[in-house]
Amino acid sequence: MKIKLGKNAYGKNAVNFSKIIRRDGYHEFRQVSVDISLAGDFESAHLSGDNSKILATDTQKNTVFALAKENFNASIEEFGVYLAGYFFSNNEQVTAVNIQMTEHLYSRIVTNTSPHPHAFISSGGEKHTAFIVKNTAGVIVNAGINDLLILKTTDSGFANFIKERFTTLHETNERILATQCKASWTYYSTDIDFTSHYINARRMMLETFATHKSLSLQQTVYAMGEAVLQMDQEIKEISFKMPNKHHILFNLEQFGMENNNEIFMATDEPYGYITATIERE
Amino acid sequence: MKIKLGKNAYGKNAVNFSKIIRRDGYHEFRQVSVDISLAGDFESAHLSGDNSKILATDTQKNTVFALAKENFNASIEEFGVYLAGYFFSNNEQVTAVNIQMTEHLYSRIVTNTSPHPHAFISSGGEKHTAFIVKNTAGVIVNAGINDLLILKTTDSGFANFIKERFTTLHETNERILATQCKASWTYYSTDIDFTSHYINARRMMLETFATHKSLSLQQTVYAMGEAVLQMDQEIKEISFKMPNKHHILFNLEQFGMENNNEIFMATDEPYGYITATIERE
Amino acid sequence: MKIKLGKNAYGKNAVNFSKIIRRDGYHEFRQVSVDISLAGDFESAHLSGDNSKILATDTQKNTVFALAKENFNASIEEFGVYLAGYFFSNNEQVTAVNIQMTEHLYSRIVTNTSPHPHAFISSGGEKHTAFIVKNTAGVIVNAGINDLLILKTTDSGFANFIKERFTTLHETNERILATQCKASWTYYSTDIDFTSHYINARRMMLETFATHKSLSLQQTVYAMGEAVLQMDQEIKEISFKMPNKHHILFNLEQFGMENNNEIFMATDEPYGYITATIERE
Amino acid sequence: MKIKLGKNAYGKNAVNFSKIIRRDGYHEFRQVSVDISLAGDFESAHLSGDNSKILATDTQKNTVFALAKENFNASIEEFGVYLAGYFFSNNEQVTAVNIQMTEHLYSRIVTNTSPHPHAFISSGGEKHTAFIVKNTAGVIVNAGINDLLILKTTDSGFANFIKERFTTLHETNERILATQCKASWTYYSTDIDFTSHYINARRMMLETFATHKSLSLQQTVYAMGEAVLQMDQEIKEISFKMPNKHHILFNLEQFGMENNNEIFMATDEPYGYITATIERE
Repeated sequence: MKIKLGKNAYGKNAVNFSKIIRRDGYHEFRQVSVDISLAGDFESAHLSGDNSKILATDTQKNTVFALAKENFNASIEEFGVYLAGYFFSNNEQVTAVNIQMTEHLYSRIVTNTSPHPHAFISSGGEKHTAFIVKNTAGVIVNAGINDLLILKTTDSGFANFIKERFTTLHETNERILATQCKASWTYYSTDIDFTSHYINARRMMLETFATHKSLSLQQTVYAMGEAVLQMDQEIKEISFKMPNKHHILFNLEQFGMENNNEIFMATDEPYGYITATIERE
Repeated sequence: MKIKLGKNAYGKNAVNFSKIIRRDGYHEFRQVSVDISLAGDFESAHLSGDNSKILATDTQKNTVFALAKENFNASIEEFGVYLAGYFFSNNEQVTAVNIQMTEHLYSRIVTNTSPHPHAFISSGGEKHTAFIVKNTAGVIVNAGINDLLILKTTDSGFANFIKERFTTLHETNERILATQCKASWTYYSTDIDFTSHYINARRMMLETFATHKSLSLQQTVYAMGEAVLQMDQEIKEISFKMPNKHHILFNLEQFGMENNNEIFMATDEPYGYITATIERE
Repeated sequence: MKIKLGKNAYGKNAVNFSKIIRRDGYHEFRQVSVDISLAGDFESAHLSGDNSKILATDTQKNTVFALAKENFNASIEEFGVYLAGYFFSNNEQVTAVNIQMTEHLYSRIVTNTSPHPHAFISSGGEKHTAFIVKNTAGVIVNAGINDLLILKTTDSGFANFIKERFTTLHETNERILATQCKASWTYYSTDIDFTSHYINARRMMLETFATHKSLSLQQTVYAMGEAVLQMDQEIKEISFKMPNKHHILFNLEQFGMENNNEIFMATDEPYGYITATIERE
Repeated sequence: MKIKLGKNAYGKNAVNFSKIIRRDGYHEFRQVSVDISLAGDFESAHLSGDNSKILATDTQKNTVFALAKENFNASIEEFGVYLAGYFFSNNEQVTAVNIQMTEHLYSRIVTNTSPHPHAFISSGGEKHTAFIVKNTAGVIVNAGINDLLILKTTDSGFANFIKERFTTLHETNERILATQCKASWTYYSTDIDFTSHYINARRMMLETFATHKSLSLQQTVYAMGEAVLQMDQEIKEISFKMPNKHHILFNLEQFGMENNNEIFMATDEPYGYITATIERE
């Protein structure tokens, strides 16, 4: 059988840029990491080393920095759409552009009870993400959140699961539920106020996680997705990747002590992992 | 529009086990990390918190340890097939089982010029991987290598690429080509000597990387895949994920010194990233 | 020359526990990682494998979990003092106990504008630390902050530095100053309200960083330390470890564009690194 | 009490360079990460922002790249001594230079049973290190190894330790002993063949680890240090930092299965941690 090139793509990852936007009397500060992936007619590069259709990844990197100057003034979703369109329309050999944007979030340092105009503190590990797909069919915008580390100390149980030979887990109606959530959702439109939709989706996920009476992480993830879809008709579907960050009840009985859901071992591995997409019929 | 559950799966990740296999006069030591993912009829868990079809991820973890005792004596591919089959046949609500296995590799410590019977040293970051997909259509075995960090100091160039407004990269016919390669390939059969096929595929990739005159990382990755497919008719296709670990020529001219491809800055980010599947027609 | 045992210590690291403290109508959640290090008369263990004076590190781990139940209700500083005293007074072969505590911080999720009684979100990478040294001379408490990622977009320059053969850096009176600060300070007393002192020291560091006109990171670090010492007479000295998280002005002139301190490359490596202790005469 | 500057230092970290050394018919490839730390008369920088005595960390970085061209042709120890001397003698305000060098190790790819002249594969996580201290008293060279991941599957026990209230660990005369060893040792002289001393010290540590009948990690670490000091009279003392990488016997009895030291859980945290210096009287 003859050998041939199958699916392929290439681009520059981890193009880490920051921007100061000077407003009247105060600065905004933004820090974003961009991953670019181009698919298209690259067979000659693979088969014969002919790079005449290759936009060097170094050039892609330069393009991000240069275009950020004029075109990144609002959301990463908008800049991602612009960037994807730029690469697509300037490279006829390219049939699809994927742009992953990850924004590192900062808050203003508070001095004398007021937010400082140009001093910032990291908002933590949580990131705002955008994933843009541009091809001949058009452009699709996904927004998301990564590394959203949340937990609740009650209103969470896990019971009535399968009991079989290798089952040792005890049923419980009281446990810590913790996850480092990755969520991403798809908008129907590319012409909306991305920032307010993102803020609302985030708020709805947090509120649902907090107030939901959880019988399993599966039920919680569905409830979170359902709440977002019910609230925001611009969102077509939402996907979650949820590791279960286990806090395991520590055995104090062996020392003659009670442990009424007080003391836990926080473990990283192994960990449960749930993925689910919630969508519309 | 009504809201519904879309694609979903769950399982235990990072089930890290080690095994001593006692042979006559010497020990083997194996260390493996297992990720399990089950898809199936889990709607009741998501929608109503009914866990009666849920095999707890803790039980999945226990199963790996228990089955490793009797059933892990050879390759991770074989054990993965066994594990996937076990979960599939014992859980009728499950329609697909994905098992990712990552083996951490050890060599024997050498004492007095001979390999020691029970003392080991890590072989490094490179891992042997296996990915098993089991569903009603059967079982598919993918083997692979992860974190294979290789480089060559000559026989690599990059020229004749697109020159446009944001291009600043210089053409070169002499550069360091370095990558931390992730490769995985699919076998036609599940009844072969996985270990020898793995060793041969790895050898062929290394030899091709070493001896290939590279005009681009794209050309090199294709050559590596083609060589593997030409050598081993049991392999259906092979996929690569190759970050370009850039070693950038440092500007010594600014200090009145020459830099004849001698001194480089080793950088992690940003980095080029190429993905490609090489397959048979 | 005869060979002998020099300085040595041992203990359990990364004892990761979490605790739910049930208050009237709401929960507190705390997550702490503890490193224990014991020094003392362990020569027989090293020289002859006699473990009769060895408190197993597994036992040390159990002790943390058990003692956390009754004795961890307020600050990590207080619990650290308790733990150190416990190990010291129960092990006569031990001459010094070092306890490093790292608290992962959580905030309450806000629902309907009020903080939720039992749902939490990570406050980010910043951690509160405590380092306790207990020996025959007494006990010393150091408090601190780790991974405090802060930056300012103006009021920072770097000029008038040495110019020599290998100098290529341009002077500037306008740059981004960013650091992932590690600070720790020593209290004179072990009988103070550690939490309020910690909060005040943190606030003073942030305010000084924000409002200081920086001529160098060295000057800023000194100003931060001086401000803390001036404010809090209970603090004997303060030490900083400050990596300089460089945001490097990107060259847009090469594309015929201006870059008025707008667009930067955010880099991790290499990085400047400053350490300094500010103390009292 | 007046406030003053205490101990302080600064420099550039993670100066990551690589070098191709062109020999007759083959290439050598070296990759090194350098951390520089300068101490000296920097009070004016801290107190008044006067940078006139500050050698910019950017300049330090440039210096490493430039000096690597002519002066890095053999061991990192020798280049470290050269670098430290360069910074010391060219900066009269500097009273001490500390240089930490970490070499990433590569082996040649083997093709057709022979080592390839210019294609390399990473030797793994293990690194060769050198730490150079230069001050008015002279220069001291420490060599070392980092991330040496070794384990043995028998000839290791742990028994006769203290039994008390919180002890649950069982005594054993058969366990896996695993560690990710960091070792560093000090030479009396700066004028020796560093590479052969390093190779011999490494070999002696590995052989001792392999052949030693271990009653505890403490005993093993002492034995390793003693063996190195006995073999090499040029080494003044050796220090170890040894995390205990626990492989915990998994409870198969709960499933009616035996576990004759076959199946283990490999865990990262918590972990025992031993530090010891072995020296001469």
